[in-house]
Amino acid sequence: MSDTLVCVSDYELQAQRLLPKSVFDYYFSGADEQETLRDNVAAFARWCLYPRVLRDVSTVDMSTTVLGQRVSMPICVAPTAMQRMAHPDGETATARACLSCDTGMMLSSWATSTIEEVAEAAPGAVRWMQLYIYKDRALTQSLVRRAEEAGYKGIFVTVDTPYLGRRRDDVRNRFKLPSHLRMANFESPDLAFSSKEGYGEDSGLAVYVTQAIDATVKWDDIAWLKRLTSLPVVVKGVLTVQIDALPEVVEAVGGKVEVFMDGGIRKGTDVLKALALGAKAVFVGRPILWALACEGDKGVANVLQLLREELHLALALTGCRSLKEVNRSLLRRSELISRI
Amino acid sequence: MSDTLVCVSDYELQAQRLLPKSVFDYYFSGADEQETLRDNVAAFARWCLYPRVLRDVSTVDMSTTVLGQRVSMPICVAPTAMQRMAHPDGETATARACLSCDTGMMLSSWATSTIEEVAEAAPGAVRWMQLYIYKDRALTQSLVRRAEEAGYKGIFVTVDTPYLGRRRDDVRNRFKLPSHLRMANFESPDLAFSSKEGYGEDSGLAVYVTQAIDATVKWDDIAWLKRLTSLPVVVKGVLTVQIDALPEVVEAVGGKVEVFMDGGIRKGTDVLKALALGAKAVFVGRPILWALACEGDKGVANVLQLLREELHLALALTGCRSLKEVNRSLLRRSELISRI
Amino acid sequence: MSDTLVCVSDYELQAQRLLPKSVFDYYFSGADEQETLRDNVAAFARWCLYPRVLRDVSTVDMSTTVLGQRVSMPICVAPTAMQRMAHPDGETATARACLSCDTGMMLSSWATSTIEEVAEAAPGAVRWMQLYIYKDRALTQSLVRRAEEAGYKGIFVTVDTPYLGRRRDDVRNRFKLPSHLRMANFESPDLAFSSKEGYGEDSGLAVYVTQAIDATVKWDDIAWLKRLTSLPVVVKGVLTVQIDALPEVVEAVGGKVEVFMDGGIRKGTDVLKALALGAKAVFVGRPILWALACEGDKGVANVLQLLREELHLALALTGCRSLKEVNRSLLRRSELISRI
Amino acid sequence: MSDTLVCVSDYELQAQRLLPKSVFDYYFSGADEQETLRDNVAAFARWCLYPRVLRDVSTVDMSTTVLGQRVSMPICVAPTAMQRMAHPDGETATARACLSCDTGMMLSSWATSTIEEVAEAAPGAVRWMQLYIYKDRALTQSLVRRAEEAGYKGIFVTVDTPYLGRRRDDVRNRFKLPSHLRMANFESPDLAFSSKEGYGEDSGLAVYVTQAIDATVKWDDIAWLKRLTSLPVVVKGVLTVQIDALPEVVEAVGGKVEVFMDGGIRKGTDVLKALALGAKAVFVGRPILWALACEGDKGVANVLQLLREELHLALALTGCRSLKEVNRSLLRRSELISRI
Repeated sequence: MSDTLVCVSDYELQAQRLLPKSVFDYYFSGADEQETLRDNVAAFARWCLYPRVLRDVSTVDMSTTVLGQRVSMPICVAPTAMQRMAHPDGETATARACLSCDTGMMLSSWATSTIEEVAEAAPGAVRWMQLYIYKDRALTQSLVRRAEEAGYKGIFVTVDTPYLGRRRDDVRNRFKLPSHLRMANFESPDLAFSSKEGYGEDSGLAVYVTQAIDATVKWDDIAWLKRLTSLPVVVKGVLTVQIDALPEVVEAVGGKVEVFMDGGIRKGTDVLKALALGAKAVFVGRPILWALACEGDKGVANVLQLLREELHLALALTGCRSLKEVNRSLLRRSELISRI
Repeated sequence: MSDTLVCVSDYELQAQRLLPKSVFDYYFSGADEQETLRDNVAAFARWCLYPRVLRDVSTVDMSTTVLGQRVSMPICVAPTAMQRMAHPDGETATARACLSCDTGMMLSSWATSTIEEVAEAAPGAVRWMQLYIYKDRALTQSLVRRAEEAGYKGIFVTVDTPYLGRRRDDVRNRFKLPSHLRMANFESPDLAFSSKEGYGEDSGLAVYVTQAIDATVKWDDIAWLKRLTSLPVVVKGVLTVQIDALPEVVEAVGGKVEVFMDGGIRKGTDVLKALALGAKAVFVGRPILWALACEGDKGVANVLQLLREELHLALALTGCRSLKEVNRSLLRRSELISRI
Repeated sequence: MSDTLVCVSDYELQAQRLLPKSVFDYYFSGADEQETLRDNVAAFARWCLYPRVLRDVSTVDMSTTVLGQRVSMPICVAPTAMQRMAHPDGETATARACLSCDTGMMLSSWATSTIEEVAEAAPGAVRWMQLYIYKDRALTQSLVRRAEEAGYKGIFVTVDTPYLGRRRDDVRNRFKLPSHLRMANFESPDLAFSSKEGYGEDSGLAVYVTQAIDATVKWDDIAWLKRLTSLPVVVKGVLTVQIDALPEVVEAVGGKVEVFMDGGIRKGTDVLKALALGAKAVFVGRPILWALACEGDKGVANVLQLLREELHLALALTGCRSLKEVNRSLLRRSELISRI
Repeated sequence: MSDTLVCVSDYELQAQRLLPKSVFDYYFSGADEQETLRDNVAAFARWCLYPRVLRDVSTVDMSTTVLGQRVSMPICVAPTAMQRMAHPDGETATARACLSCDTGMMLSSWATSTIEEVAEAAPGAVRWMQLYIYKDRALTQSLVRRAEEAGYKGIFVTVDTPYLGRRRDDVRNRFKLPSHLRMANFESPDLAFSSKEGYGEDSGLAVYVTQAIDATVKWDDIAWLKRLTSLPVVVKGVLTVQIDALPEVVEAVGGKVEVFMDGGIRKGTDVLKALALGAKAVFVGRPILWALACEGDKGVANVLQLLREELHLALALTGCRSLKEVNRSLLRRSELISRI
């Protein structure tokens, strides 16, 4: 483990020092006044884990499956966009780290590495593809096809971005990709977010979404997507709110589909809380970006290892010897209010 | 949209730099320790919008009517006083911006432009008149008459100011109008708030209210007012408290009258929350003053445009394709406490 | 009203500049970490006043009675100790101000002016005597006798100080009276808190209480006191907690005795909240000390006048034309949490 | 009592100035972001003591028994580790102070003084032994045997540390014992936490726990321990959460065993709250370390005396003349939220 970076917050602070401001802002920011982001962190603090003692916790089994694929822990990597802004190796570094940690990675449609490059960087790794439905449906279909051929194991289709949330810093920064980078999965400069004309007096990405992404998507389109592919299709972004909404979602699906969580996970106890509320696994996004910025693939592996150790400790101190023993009884609702 | 001002808060900060302190204080301050003002903002944060996905939100219709007049969005301009302290063009600039944005403006009795000047500045615009009931009833009646003749579409009579709330900064500043300005609708220096003798060791405006405004007003006087005019008469200031009081008011009137809200609106999600709780439209006051101070009519148009875009986004992300689809089900009460 | 001091907080800040630190600390401090003091202020903020409009509030009658004595407003002066530390005229200045404002004053047993001096300073004023029960019962009886003879109208016997709460700053400061002052009602230096030997390595006043005040006092002793005098006897300090306890107390006594409140009152809305919860009148302590330090009797009169005006405004904006119209319906419990 | 240190917080601040950073951090820190530590303090603030007046509190009896041993007050010393880092006399100074204050001390397995040294330093004192169950059961048994022979009166076996919580500062500091110190009860450098090879890139103590302490301990092992000794055996660490859990624990054991509390006690009112919720006595840890760092045995005696006086005052102001009169009716749950 790194010399001085002992928790995810340390990586975040270090990344803030290393990254250009507009890149850090893009990775860091949520929409508006970032209430949702802040509420997520506060929502975790409102749940308390209940210690249980006098159980043999000399071994703790953290392995599980995600869409049928075995992973060594219920902590996978979320599909953050344009990772080469954080490190020259970008998504390929992340893929190598996931392979070394024996866990899964979801690749963003907006990656700065191609679907195929990432597959080659870590051939044996568990990989899934995050998909935006573009107005250009042939293009959308070709992304699915390429993911299938490159051995990705599932399609997570994002449904909460008919328009991009108003990220104020990105508007201020007129956010766009550095000129040497492009969204690598697209041919045309417009779709690769590398148009020379720029994207007006707004966040470039907001303009990109309005131009390229389909705001008419309905359940029919999910059905269309399922007909296109034999891979599992997961709807991503059903509830972009707080961990507090998790039990409701889990109950609604009644065990018929796997429920995952991303957003706000910063430490091992956060992971355990999400699992106790019914998530099959969690996906971490920003912590991976900070790690990538700090130390490339080694950093990503370090952060994944750190979260693994924190989860191990959280499981042991709540008396859980495997994920099967994790359930709602580990949690209490705190009456105390965190600073938020 | 302006280069660096990307939200209402940016306009506020910029206006604070540009305006003389006593003017900014007057515009900014609420009464006492400003609890009500602060609670309003916190009250909005206590309601959470619930995202809905997989609905076709490629078009979102935001048009509505206010007292029978069509406006392009449910965001109108509240009657803040003495706008020429913010910008030389004052209320006429605001009127031009409202016309260009196709929305309505309420003019304060205490405007530094006359009823007629504002009408001439934006002839086709939807305008309403805010009215104080003066001890001098003939004067009061003449204000109504002039509004009718100048094409205003309704009278909003303020009933929550028998005395002016104790605005501490205004007392400290011995607040009065700059000597080149006057309340333009009145002849006598006393009523125009431009008396050479000044207004004692208090907020000048508090003294003005005590001297001129009628503290005996009852429902009878509203009936008197309705007999005076064929315009719609709206009682303004029934509840100067929080957004939390809105559902109660809406239920009490049982759909028989339109309910509006002003106070505390700072962004598009605030507007949507007010609508979801039953308001027909909202009125924004301070954001318009900050915009006026920053960039005159162009600034006001920018802020109205910015709020329109934020509301559009909020509607789209909650799956609403028109205001008819907005209702209480969009909201949840947050258990988290905002910093206030 | 003073030029720049427009609220009680202004007086407090100014007094902090003017007073020696150990004196300000003594006046300012509560016990331990001052939780009770802080909670009092926060407790007021948890109650919201509900505005009522369209009532004739051109005149508002604030007069009431306290133990049968008429006062012009329900705001009287609490018995803070040793007021000559704040101003050379001490309690006599306070008495003159109360007379000029037509309200009542309670004199502390620990005054630095005698019972008789205060009576002479403001002969026509409504005055009550605060009493500690001393181990020396003859001495206690003589204090009562002197109050009767000097025209005081009631005895408020303090029952919550068998020992002095641990005021940390007073311990640090080894708090004692300046050498030119003494508790003027006592002959012996020990009882006058002016012993040359000092009071050890603690708050001098804590030592004084342990030595002189009777920690065995029970209901029997209240009965003994009532037999001693024909004046009304009021038990003071039954609940030194928060305004939230007030309704419970009022209900418990069932209208058979008058209930008063002191502690935490800083502005007119605080007064109205206490009245709405059932207090007959409130007593203000620290605001009077700050006023005394700033401007002597003129300052005290200014602060009383300021509170009167704030209460007038609060009554008018809640539609109350006299104290008879004040009741619980004016209040709502806020769901918002104040910073505390 | 000390000249300028008038409460536990003062000792903490002074200790922070005097101690090397890594030592202060070790003593001060909780795990992760220290939520549990912070929540403990906030949880105390959520309970309010209810004053009761007009009872004879001229004498207050604070004596009680712990596991059958009489102590002069319900405040004993918790088993903090490695006290010679705070002061050269370490645990022997603490023992002398406990003897002088007529209260009990629990000695940590990880003391830097031997079981026998502490017994000799304060022969007549009430002492208990805190025990970790080592993987080496013969060693564990020998610790129990030595405690019995040295006159300790009970065994408190820690069950909440199968692994050490992740104390971030200790990881950053690569925490280990200064080279002149060792855990004095162990022969081998490895077990004495004084190995020359160090303990890797982690908190040294976390590595020590993983290597030496038995993570398989179950109820069977408690039974084994009880068969080993005739001393009372107490399970320590059943609930490492908040004071709010205390009533539940007390109810669960139904009066059949004594329940104690440690963690978060900083002043006399905290002690009274714990007693009112059902604790037989409390144990204080960090305050003793700060006192030891400031003034050795004299400091520890001062802090114990200070807490005794604060508890005396808290009892008197709630009208309790002995611990038998302490019960749940003294408490109310506050609706106010403390800063945390």
